[in-house]
Amino acid sequence: MTFADLGKRARGASRALAKATRAEKDVALRAAADAIDAGAAGIAKENDRDVADARARDVSRAMIDRLVLDAPRIASVAETLRDIARAEDPVGAVLEDRARPNGLRVRRVRVPIGVIGMIYEARPNVTAEAFALCFKAGNAVILRGGSDASRTNAALADAIRSALPEPLRDAVQLADASTRESVLEMVRAEGVIDLVIPRGGEALIRFVTENARVPVVQHYKGVCHLYVDASADVDEALAIARNAKLSRPGVCNALECLLVDDAIAARLLPRLAGALENCEIRGCEKTVALVPGAKRADEDDYGREFLDRILAVRVVAGLDGALDHIARFGSGHTEAIVTRDAANAARFRAEVDAACVVVNASTRFHDGGELGLGAEIGIATSRIHWRGPMGLESLTTMKWLVDGDGQIR
Amino acid sequence: MTFADLGKRARGASRALAKATRAEKDVALRAAADAIDAGAAGIAKENDRDVADARARDVSRAMIDRLVLDAPRIASVAETLRDIARAEDPVGAVLEDRARPNGLRVRRVRVPIGVIGMIYEARPNVTAEAFALCFKAGNAVILRGGSDASRTNAALADAIRSALPEPLRDAVQLADASTRESVLEMVRAEGVIDLVIPRGGEALIRFVTENARVPVVQHYKGVCHLYVDASADVDEALAIARNAKLSRPGVCNALECLLVDDAIAARLLPRLAGALENCEIRGCEKTVALVPGAKRADEDDYGREFLDRILAVRVVAGLDGALDHIARFGSGHTEAIVTRDAANAARFRAEVDAACVVVNASTRFHDGGELGLGAEIGIATSRIHWRGPMGLESLTTMKWLVDGDGQIR
Repeated sequence: MTFADLGKRARGASRALAKATRAEKDVALRAAADAIDAGAAGIAKENDRDVADARARDVSRAMIDRLVLDAPRIASVAETLRDIARAEDPVGAVLEDRARPNGLRVRRVRVPIGVIGMIYEARPNVTAEAFALCFKAGNAVILRGGSDASRTNAALADAIRSALPEPLRDAVQLADASTRESVLEMVRAEGVIDLVIPRGGEALIRFVTENARVPVVQHYKGVCHLYVDASADVDEALAIARNAKLSRPGVCNALECLLVDDAIAARLLPRLAGALENCEIRGCEKTVALVPGAKRADEDDYGREFLDRILAVRVVAGLDGALDHIARFGSGHTEAIVTRDAANAARFRAEVDAACVVVNASTRFHDGGELGLGAEIGIATSRIHWRGPMGLESLTTMKWLVDGDGQIR
Repeated sequence: MTFADLGKRARGASRALAKATRAEKDVALRAAADAIDAGAAGIAKENDRDVADARARDVSRAMIDRLVLDAPRIASVAETLRDIARAEDPVGAVLEDRARPNGLRVRRVRVPIGVIGMIYEARPNVTAEAFALCFKAGNAVILRGGSDASRTNAALADAIRSALPEPLRDAVQLADASTRESVLEMVRAEGVIDLVIPRGGEALIRFVTENARVPVVQHYKGVCHLYVDASADVDEALAIARNAKLSRPGVCNALECLLVDDAIAARLLPRLAGALENCEIRGCEKTVALVPGAKRADEDDYGREFLDRILAVRVVAGLDGALDHIARFGSGHTEAIVTRDAANAARFRAEVDAACVVVNASTRFHDGGELGLGAEIGIATSRIHWRGPMGLESLTTMKWLVDGDGQIR
């Protein structure tokens, strides 16, 4: 199927979907979840082939971890679809409702965006979850996954489509994942795609930004910092650093760089290596002097998303030093502070420019589920339209409704 | 000053402004209003020169009307700045606030976007009003007005800047209006400008869309329709059509095309010319047969923004005919229906895809002031970030704040 055909089908389905009731959408989502469960063995088999190919190409362990879709993960994908079916329908929600002195009633309501293009890399669960979130919010989706996962993605999309009723079946479309050309087609598809969401590394985001003619909300890398203030409790700081770095090093809300106030460095740093088992530490001169086994960081270790058991560390001159470092090296994703000083916490919250600012907790909480939003399509690092975890509300737009009885101006 | 310098100054001011209190911003806005009042004679003189040049180039009456900034209009601009000073500060507003079962407090709050680029054509009041809206929402603004209004815009910006305290003085910057190059610089200025708002005709919007690397919220033309349903009260329909077309023909929420249900055409159309004095009517075959003096419309009269005393008219086959016409020719700005049939009103509201859908009132109400938002920077026809009148809220983004006492995941 050409991209133009696929776009036309998606648009047709989006029109039908915009009129669908909540019940119709939820029934379809549950049927899709059941079809994924029923087809789990076949999906896992296709995933095995994708994984074997990836291993043969000697890709990183983190990449393989993202690619694997085994029986428990398939069951979890199906469960996510059921969760999305249970979630409130964002469409039709009234954002404002007021009467004007001239008797006009003015409402602002949520409506679907239309057709969403999703461009992502290895993780195949995104295929089903992005479909389900877009669908519940009344949008068709054109998915362009990674070529590494193409068999898995096709198997998931087939299962979903087999469960959708006729007018909505085209609400999920797979774009060709074998060439960059399909990315270019998507980001230039004015009138075909209403919003493109790229989720991936620097090269992908740059390619999309330079070529896009349709609106883009970026899901860019997370170069997340944790700043340990002079007033911090050292045990708490170490526990948060350990969790943020090691609970899942391959994800975007994992810690990449620890900043330590000079005034607390001598108490905290000697204990750091013990708290972070099997983790390489690359630090500044002061860090190397205080952390047994630490290596000297290169300048490009700051601002880097390792996605691995590696942590950059720097001793800084108090809060101002931390704010300067974050302004220079942060990616606007998640920034955290450990402090007992309310004034420093307040300044950190106000002055750090990031999608999520965390005080006295792990960076790993920057996640739709953890923040109470339910499932998310990713974490937006753009400033426009939405920022942070993109749940159902973020996949809608608005419409103004004005009701009168003959008013003129 | 080079564009890079101007961008750096705007960014510096935006950082200072993001930390400014509401009181600091409001004092500065009132001072700017006073400076505009005090400089009114000088501003009007510069405007006279711009208007004289435009007349010499024989531009349209509608264009001259937009360009004129005489004493009453200058006073009204200053008053708008005072209104904006009185408006609620959108920055810091809490959009969500919840406690999680693990004790985390999660808030989503409004924060400024940063630096906004505004690209617009003749209307010089936009210079002061866009500055004031961006400023109140904590943003610096780079303004690229029309070359026709360059003297007026410079005089307004000088007056405003003279009134701003030092760290905020650079919050308003004028880009070179004499070449297209400056538009290109703005829309490609990643990291310098966070959002570009182009407000203008098709050529401008197309140029911006094709070249933009920064996010864009478009303010595109208004090809507004009014559909008169079979059940409508003819007097009410005529009064609304007259107001929508003639109260200010040169603006984007003015009526451009009247659609009439075949079932009511014989009762309504013979009275149309009488209701619309000095207005050219270009209609379909049935219209020409029923409206004395009507001319036959060309195909390209449908979907056209006349911005003048010209109205396209078409007799359609009921609501479905109207919906089809609007889907094909509408620009997604404002669409209206006159009806006494609640089911048809509901279908029209649900199925028309536009920023604003009006039932039994004039299209002219699609305006920030009329809808109760206060001043607006324009009317967005994009689907992403904001749609419809862009008041203060639309000029902010969001930030998630997570507060804990040592939580790990």
